[in-house]
Amino acid sequence: MKLILDCFGGDKGCAPCVEAAKKALGQYPDLSFVLVGDAEKIRAELKEEFPRVEIVHAPDVVTGNDKPTDAIRLKRESSMIKAIKILREDESADGLISTGPTGVLIAAATLRIGRIDGIRRPAFCPILPTMRGGIVGICDSGANVECSPEMLLQFAIMGSEYLKAAFHISTPRVALLNVGTEEEKGDDLHREAHKLLKAAEGINFVGNMESRDLLSGNYDLVVCDGFSGNVLIKSTEGTALELLKKIKKDIYSREIYKLGALFMKKMFEEEKRFMNYQNYGGSVLLGTEKIIVKGHGSSDATAVYKCIEQALNMSGSSLNEKIQKHLEREETTNV
Amino acid sequence: MKLILDCFGGDKGCAPCVEAAKKALGQYPDLSFVLVGDAEKIRAELKEEFPRVEIVHAPDVVTGNDKPTDAIRLKRESSMIKAIKILREDESADGLISTGPTGVLIAAATLRIGRIDGIRRPAFCPILPTMRGGIVGICDSGANVECSPEMLLQFAIMGSEYLKAAFHISTPRVALLNVGTEEEKGDDLHREAHKLLKAAEGINFVGNMESRDLLSGNYDLVVCDGFSGNVLIKSTEGTALELLKKIKKDIYSREIYKLGALFMKKMFEEEKRFMNYQNYGGSVLLGTEKIIVKGHGSSDATAVYKCIEQALNMSGSSLNEKIQKHLEREETTNV
Repeated sequence: MKLILDCFGGDKGCAPCVEAAKKALGQYPDLSFVLVGDAEKIRAELKEEFPRVEIVHAPDVVTGNDKPTDAIRLKRESSMIKAIKILREDESADGLISTGPTGVLIAAATLRIGRIDGIRRPAFCPILPTMRGGIVGICDSGANVECSPEMLLQFAIMGSEYLKAAFHISTPRVALLNVGTEEEKGDDLHREAHKLLKAAEGINFVGNMESRDLLSGNYDLVVCDGFSGNVLIKSTEGTALELLKKIKKDIYSREIYKLGALFMKKMFEEEKRFMNYQNYGGSVLLGTEKIIVKGHGSSDATAVYKCIEQALNMSGSSLNEKIQKHLEREETTNV
Repeated sequence: MKLILDCFGGDKGCAPCVEAAKKALGQYPDLSFVLVGDAEKIRAELKEEFPRVEIVHAPDVVTGNDKPTDAIRLKRESSMIKAIKILREDESADGLISTGPTGVLIAAATLRIGRIDGIRRPAFCPILPTMRGGIVGICDSGANVECSPEMLLQFAIMGSEYLKAAFHISTPRVALLNVGTEEEKGDDLHREAHKLLKAAEGINFVGNMESRDLLSGNYDLVVCDGFSGNVLIKSTEGTALELLKKIKKDIYSREIYKLGALFMKKMFEEEKRFMNYQNYGGSVLLGTEKIIVKGHGSSDATAVYKCIEQALNMSGSSLNEKIQKHLEREETTNV
């Protein structure tokens, strides 16, 4: 197993990536890495020589201000674009991990990395914790802002197979994000997608879901167009973080609250950990021939390590073969 | 000022509406009500005779399971459809308050109640609290699942005037809900809407907003298509409620947490009150000739009273005249 690591995608330089890679090398004897980015800085961070580590120099960095098309054309010496190039050209490379800007990563991956036969567009599928202790996947969370009903069906297929393969959920309960639970709700796109999902034999479709029920634990996978999926995940994360911040501020506003909080320190730490989506790994891009995992820009070493584990999980489970078979089955049924 | 009250829209029967009406009658000597619904039950709840109160009997009830078109056609004796009819036909009626199903209310209001000249579609504008103590309006939050860029511009105009008139925000900061802050982000609809908003002279447009920043206090009004606006508000509310529920459950899991929580009882009550959107009133429907305020289905008397106050606020501020003037100004500039 060989993973390409874009070491200069995130906000924290290469330290988290290098640290995570070192840990993973210790854990997985068959794993090797290509670390891409400023070679001198990577070497300094590695401190010693490691077998199974190749360093590829890429002095430039893609930033959030770069337009995807410009970055692909003009920043060929950036860690992200070079990492994608290696993933494409090195036949022995299985996957790529990047904590760089999402828009550029999607554009570059869509342009440069092949797709599973029959898949129209790759889609992001991040994972959030639910209030019942389980998880819920959101597909697509922003790779495709314009979607067709057929694309939403494909997101359901890819997401279902991903949850089966990587999280061992035997028959994932799939919901369609909509403005109401009734079948006829929503715009044309969502009404049409509802019909397709209902008719799909290999999908355990349980109906429409309102965004307020995302964390309820009643669903394993939420299928959505990339625009509303993006609104959904960011508002869920944003609200949780803002509320925890507010509680913290309020605790400091009175001595008696501070006293009470002393007894509850562990609990608050636990809530914070629970709502920190970094602890659940990155967003995987489903539908590409090779594995791509996108970590959050502010990922620390633990978060990058989670992304590495996700890539290994996906690779070990022959996910892409399963997606392709499911797709073929569904198409045969629909004819 | 005369308000029509749909007394059997919500989950709790007519008690909250009747109680709120009684309170409002005491506070506002020029206010009169038409209470619509099962007359006998309303009379029982009123207990005594009230001047300035008319009761109109409507034995049927619209439920969440009714299709809007069916409800309008077949449930003419329901409290909501009859209330809309009175609003339309009684020239002295200024506005209507209902806690009934949103879909039916929008459809009935759109069909039966005239619009402000030039307004393409009415839009909902609920209000949420921000973490800095202020408020933020969301327009449209679900009345229109399919939108054009011009409609989004109109939502910005109506929402801005509403915030000025009802909340005394002198120049509301208007943001466009999008998947990223950069100008070129989003699908065609949002890119086009961005251009229109930027060019509009009477709008204090501050750019795109990601859903995670809704509660940041950096924005007064978020403009969105009804589909993603609906996803936004329901996930914000849902996440806050789920998180508070989780904290409560976790407190009960250990004796030491329960002890700590004793010191913080007031604070937790305050957080709960803060995140209870009912305390911020209902969603007003902007763009109709007469005032329509939609309260939450689970509204108690306090929440219904807030809705009544909102209707009075809107009426006293000549909001519709201001919206129409703004619209005319913007159209003259655009020619």
